[in-house]
Amino acid sequence: MKARVQVMLKTGVLDPQGEAIRHALGALGFDGVEGVRQGKVIELDLAGDDAAAAEAQVTEMCEKLLANTVIESYKIDLS
Amino acid sequence: MKARVQVMLKTGVLDPQGEAIRHALGALGFDGVEGVRQGKVIELDLAGDDAAAAEAQVTEMCEKLLANTVIESYKIDLS
Repeated sequence: MKARVQVMLKTGVLDPQGEAIRHALGALGFDGVEGVRQGKVIELDLAGDDAAAAEAQVTEMCEKLLANTVIESYKIDLS
Repeated sequence: MKARVQVMLKTGVLDPQGEAIRHALGALGFDGVEGVRQGKVIELDLAGDDAAAAEAQVTEMCEKLLANTVIESYKIDLS
């Protein structure tokens, strides 16, 4: 089964990449961009079809490797 | 309104970041990870409530700045 993990900086944590994108969009003439946040998305192909087991495993992956939970939050979607 | 852009390397394009994650997950003892792809997610806060106009604007942003369409594909979700 497939899992999609989205890792974003927590609200309140400064996001220089997002700010750089916002400035670049402004420089290119795109108006009305009020805020930009950039994060990562990680798509995993997992063996097995047990959704509950997969979710538990992916949560552990996030806590141990994929996200820095001090400053980042993560969201898991299984499909 | 809010737009979420997901930018991934196209199928067939080598993804060294994804491969690095797959190796690291294996080294941490996570079995059954058959493939990993890593991409970017960009969340935009846009002025205005016109979904069609927003989608057109974000598509142009992707073509001009957010994605390298030679090797990357993008997906736009509005909410």
